[in-house]
Amino acid sequence: MKELWSKRARALTPYIPGEQPRERKFIKLNTNENPYPPSPMALAAIREAACDTLRLYPDPECTNLREVLAASYGLKPNQVFVGNGSDEVLAMCFQAFFDPDRPILFPDITYSFYTVYADLFGLTYRQIPLDENFAVPREPFLEENGGIVIANPNAPTGRAISLSGVKAVLEGNPNSVVVVDEAYVDFGARSAVELVDCHPNLVVVQTMSKSRSLAGLRVGFAFANENLITALNSVKNSFNSYTLDRLALAGAEGALRDVGYLRATTMKIIHTRGYTACRLKSLGFQVVDSSANFLFVSHPDVAAKTLLDGLRERGILVRWFDKPRISNYLRITIGTDQEMEALCAALAELLGKEG
Amino acid sequence: MKELWSKRARALTPYIPGEQPRERKFIKLNTNENPYPPSPMALAAIREAACDTLRLYPDPECTNLREVLAASYGLKPNQVFVGNGSDEVLAMCFQAFFDPDRPILFPDITYSFYTVYADLFGLTYRQIPLDENFAVPREPFLEENGGIVIANPNAPTGRAISLSGVKAVLEGNPNSVVVVDEAYVDFGARSAVELVDCHPNLVVVQTMSKSRSLAGLRVGFAFANENLITALNSVKNSFNSYTLDRLALAGAEGALRDVGYLRATTMKIIHTRGYTACRLKSLGFQVVDSSANFLFVSHPDVAAKTLLDGLRERGILVRWFDKPRISNYLRITIGTDQEMEALCAALAELLGKEG
Repeated sequence: MKELWSKRARALTPYIPGEQPRERKFIKLNTNENPYPPSPMALAAIREAACDTLRLYPDPECTNLREVLAASYGLKPNQVFVGNGSDEVLAMCFQAFFDPDRPILFPDITYSFYTVYADLFGLTYRQIPLDENFAVPREPFLEENGGIVIANPNAPTGRAISLSGVKAVLEGNPNSVVVVDEAYVDFGARSAVELVDCHPNLVVVQTMSKSRSLAGLRVGFAFANENLITALNSVKNSFNSYTLDRLALAGAEGALRDVGYLRATTMKIIHTRGYTACRLKSLGFQVVDSSANFLFVSHPDVAAKTLLDGLRERGILVRWFDKPRISNYLRITIGTDQEMEALCAALAELLGKEG
Repeated sequence: MKELWSKRARALTPYIPGEQPRERKFIKLNTNENPYPPSPMALAAIREAACDTLRLYPDPECTNLREVLAASYGLKPNQVFVGNGSDEVLAMCFQAFFDPDRPILFPDITYSFYTVYADLFGLTYRQIPLDENFAVPREPFLEENGGIVIANPNAPTGRAISLSGVKAVLEGNPNSVVVVDEAYVDFGARSAVELVDCHPNLVVVQTMSKSRSLAGLRVGFAFANENLITALNSVKNSFNSYTLDRLALAGAEGALRDVGYLRATTMKIIHTRGYTACRLKSLGFQVVDSSANFLFVSHPDVAAKTLLDGLRERGILVRWFDKPRISNYLRITIGTDQEMEALCAALAELLGKEG
């Protein structure tokens, strides 16, 4: 095997996403999907776009969507970049801003795609250990580097970084691009989008997959000053002129217009998260403070892997990472109230406790 | 400008796609779109998929679509790869199969994205001159190389290569991957898909954008033996787990099932192409023999750029490439009969002739 592969392809260790079961019906708390459907305005816009004009290429510059995003986030359209999911946007950030000669810095416990991108594009990196409470330390991010990636809130911990913390990293690294991956920001962290105008080294990446319930549509976006957006466009236009199809463009625009729906569904998830955290603590779990649509939990008596398997047998999928420091933790997506009831009941049973 | 860009990003010269006008209504014969709408089965499948399940990630392995493609093309699902348009599939081929140490070979006149991919991924290439009739010469493709890319039919010429020609390149290069880009194959060339089982170095790339009228949906695919498909999956899963959204998956499956529609619309275009070629010849044009949904034409008396501008003034967009050897040619997409009538009338007027 691997004959005729490029040297780079031979060396890759791809990212492994959470399971998407095709057969059996599970309670799916393993990939941080939103339990509520997308906005009816998004679905209506998609149905309207499913018409004869699909024979035509989409707008390669995604002008309308960038205008709607700019208006929604108080920026100019030339400060906005869009891509086929925030994973693609992140991959293009790695290509546009990082060179092999100096290491990229990111936490040791974070979104595990960052190391994969670095390997794919032949970049070096240094992983900065989070402290014992999974907080991001400040000093190590001020050391010599070729770029910084920070997820806020962090995954899979859910812990948020303050705006002053982000600002300190930006100000301490005027010659490096700092990518703040805000996939989960709408569930309780403070976005760095307000810093875009004043910090020419900042890129804020967000997604429609989580708070806007559109994981199935693949739309991510980045905010930065025009200079960095131009670099992202150069990379994108050297890879694929048309990364967003007409339906994704239409659906994303529809979702962005329905601000009330975003607010209602994220508030609901935030309340369910609080209630679930209490229930899990009463079952003896340690629960990391979460600003995301998931909880990162550990039990002192029963191994996370045992709970993972036991939940699966009971029809509930959660996520476990077989990695140093976090192998006794489970990442549990916040579902509906009923789904979290079922989760807590199953965990109580597994722990031999009253739920 | 360009501060904080990576070295690679600074050096890029992105591909420039044909214009997608957003305001004025043109007769659009500039980007090889299909003049007929997508299959009603594709549109119905998309509308059905525009539902609550869009909150969930798509199947990262695109299993259903690969099964439908495999059944449709007489292959096994593990011989099929899918991507976000054939441009993305091609880009991943460059990453998966080519190394910087030996040059990739492709014709000097061909799809101009190939040089852009090579630059993006730090690869070297050698452009093989087509002969004076734009035919692909055989000998130069048997020289030492690190990979080969051939478009069949070629773009922007429309000329096809015979199956025996493709076979000779495959057999002369057992240690190189040969990518045959068949974006336009359904309009009259013979596909190399029948060679996949016997040639472990062959990758056939196709798209739903042209013959299946789905340029707006962004679905491309590749056929190859399982070893090469595994390499493509390694690259794809190191870049973006979910390159196809749920709507693209559904629409592509719907379109593939409607074989009758594909046949009827491609036959219609083939007939319009023949009739248009006759009309253009009678206006004095030299018309390259086309197996694609476009014609590549040159007039001995009037410069192509003059005709391009004149047509634009008359509301008709065609494509002109400001490049050596072909700067006196226009690439004209085959539209509806009415659109081609309008084209011929406008050209007759520009040439001062009776239409």
